[in-house]
Amino acid sequence: MGVVVSLDEGKRGQASIKPLIELTAHDMSRVNQLILSKAGSDVEMIPEVANHLISSGGKRLRPMLTLATARMFDYSGDGHVKLATSVEFMHTATLLHDDVVDESGLRRGKKTARTIWGNQASVLVGDFLLGQAFRMMVEVGSIDALDILSTAASVIAEGEVMQLVAAKNLETTEDEYLAVIRAKTAALFSAAAEVGPVIASATRSERAALRSYGTNLGLAFQLIDDALDYGGNASDLGKNVGDDFREGKVTLPVILCYRRGTAQERRFWKKSIEDGVSDDGALEEARGLMSRYGAISDTITRARHFGEIARDALAPLKETPQKSALLEVIDFCIDRVS
Amino acid sequence: MGVVVSLDEGKRGQASIKPLIELTAHDMSRVNQLILSKAGSDVEMIPEVANHLISSGGKRLRPMLTLATARMFDYSGDGHVKLATSVEFMHTATLLHDDVVDESGLRRGKKTARTIWGNQASVLVGDFLLGQAFRMMVEVGSIDALDILSTAASVIAEGEVMQLVAAKNLETTEDEYLAVIRAKTAALFSAAAEVGPVIASATRSERAALRSYGTNLGLAFQLIDDALDYGGNASDLGKNVGDDFREGKVTLPVILCYRRGTAQERRFWKKSIEDGVSDDGALEEARGLMSRYGAISDTITRARHFGEIARDALAPLKETPQKSALLEVIDFCIDRVS
Repeated sequence: MGVVVSLDEGKRGQASIKPLIELTAHDMSRVNQLILSKAGSDVEMIPEVANHLISSGGKRLRPMLTLATARMFDYSGDGHVKLATSVEFMHTATLLHDDVVDESGLRRGKKTARTIWGNQASVLVGDFLLGQAFRMMVEVGSIDALDILSTAASVIAEGEVMQLVAAKNLETTEDEYLAVIRAKTAALFSAAAEVGPVIASATRSERAALRSYGTNLGLAFQLIDDALDYGGNASDLGKNVGDDFREGKVTLPVILCYRRGTAQERRFWKKSIEDGVSDDGALEEARGLMSRYGAISDTITRARHFGEIARDALAPLKETPQKSALLEVIDFCIDRVS
Repeated sequence: MGVVVSLDEGKRGQASIKPLIELTAHDMSRVNQLILSKAGSDVEMIPEVANHLISSGGKRLRPMLTLATARMFDYSGDGHVKLATSVEFMHTATLLHDDVVDESGLRRGKKTARTIWGNQASVLVGDFLLGQAFRMMVEVGSIDALDILSTAASVIAEGEVMQLVAAKNLETTEDEYLAVIRAKTAALFSAAAEVGPVIASATRSERAALRSYGTNLGLAFQLIDDALDYGGNASDLGKNVGDDFREGKVTLPVILCYRRGTAQERRFWKKSIEDGVSDDGALEEARGLMSRYGAISDTITRARHFGEIARDALAPLKETPQKSALLEVIDFCIDRVS
């Protein structure tokens, strides 16, 4: 399958997530143990559903952010392991509820929990994981961390409702789209990166730096995710190419194409996104239009804009292996388009 | 419609919720304001969905428990108002998710949010309210209260999953049923009653007394609710008589009837609860069997058992208007069967 963006432009050497993985490997093995133990319950369906998603091979970028940003400021307790696990549980709960809301059949190439155990189990196990996330935060006992993460929980849900309301509406502006992804995705990246310095008793400006890094990394990450839905292929992505298209999601590539297109092309977008005529032929046509209008490459350019803000946010901080790994992760997230 | 229980036996004078309402009226008006403000969002759909349920006329028993139990120990701050609002939001979030899980059409005589705005909005607005609940708890800043309420959130979700797994299974024992209602209903009553003394810095044994009161009041409340589903009428209940029957819920009246019945009657229960043959004729037959086997009156007797435990839990506490109101609420909850 052809990808509609120049890859050379996208690459900056060989940015990798490996340094972050290596720096957090020891702590992440404790997070993975805690995930298994806190997703446990005498009610057998709970670990079944939870582990289906938990074991499906996400990169666990969010908990690694918490671990790395705590260590970056020489944190030596074990609260960061609990907070990182809380962050991953919040993310997992969101995915379980998202799949119900989107009526998704596949996630990361596997059947979604809702198709195996039903919507009911997905809603309730999501609620359980959210409850367990809060219990772990409470165990850590930092009111500041609790404040950040509980606020993120509200904001994420608010963002999901915004997305639901904007669904299938091609008049959505780029600003409205950005407000949605800022809430539904960037808020958790931001919280994950900020609670590290918080429990490590970093300064106010260090906290703000990591918060800003997280927010902008999250925006870039989501923009690339939305671009990937029209490029790449399902095995790279762990999702089906065209999922967003078939669900009528108004993401940035669509917004740009719709605004830049002719009246006839707009009718095509109305029919496919709003009326649901989104078969393989329509998807091919959509990808053709995206290529013609540079919608994917401009989405990547927007992502790079936020990546630069994330980079500058960390600039004043002293050089540490963590800082260097976090900077490399920015490019890694953006260079996924390959 | 005939009610299958002797009402004289059920009555103990004229137990009323009025004393509790009057004692908490001033604080409850602050809770109601806070509910409106914290269910607010620039995303218009959120207050629409939230207020639909919030304004639908529940008695708000749970937040009143928090307010009364804080005042009972001379609490003079305003954290109890936030915690009471958190408790009501946790309850509302559970109802929104329950309606999705049960595919309910009516609640308290009104269309459910899911039938008006769809399952998606119900899931997401529930998540938002849960997030807002945690934010308010964090504002209060009591780690003990956070611990109690976040634990309750996990336990409630666990109870809902247990109920889902037990659904339509007539082999469910009374003990298994009790474990479900202890988790899905009593846990929040218990938490609501315990966080009051906690923020009022009551003693360990005072906390334990209110926790036990809440748990057992919650068990009695749910047992009566389950009995009411087969007696009374929809306008009293704010729900349809026979809702549980039509949804195939295995509640105590059904468990007792099934265990006490003949082989032929058990086939009837299998057909109606497990296979979903639950039309009006089947409901009438079910009510007839409940009358024959005393299933409703015995469910009420079981409720009274827990009511007595709740009463004894408060016995050592000094006499206050709050204590007296809370004792009366036990009988009020049980005497709803009228």
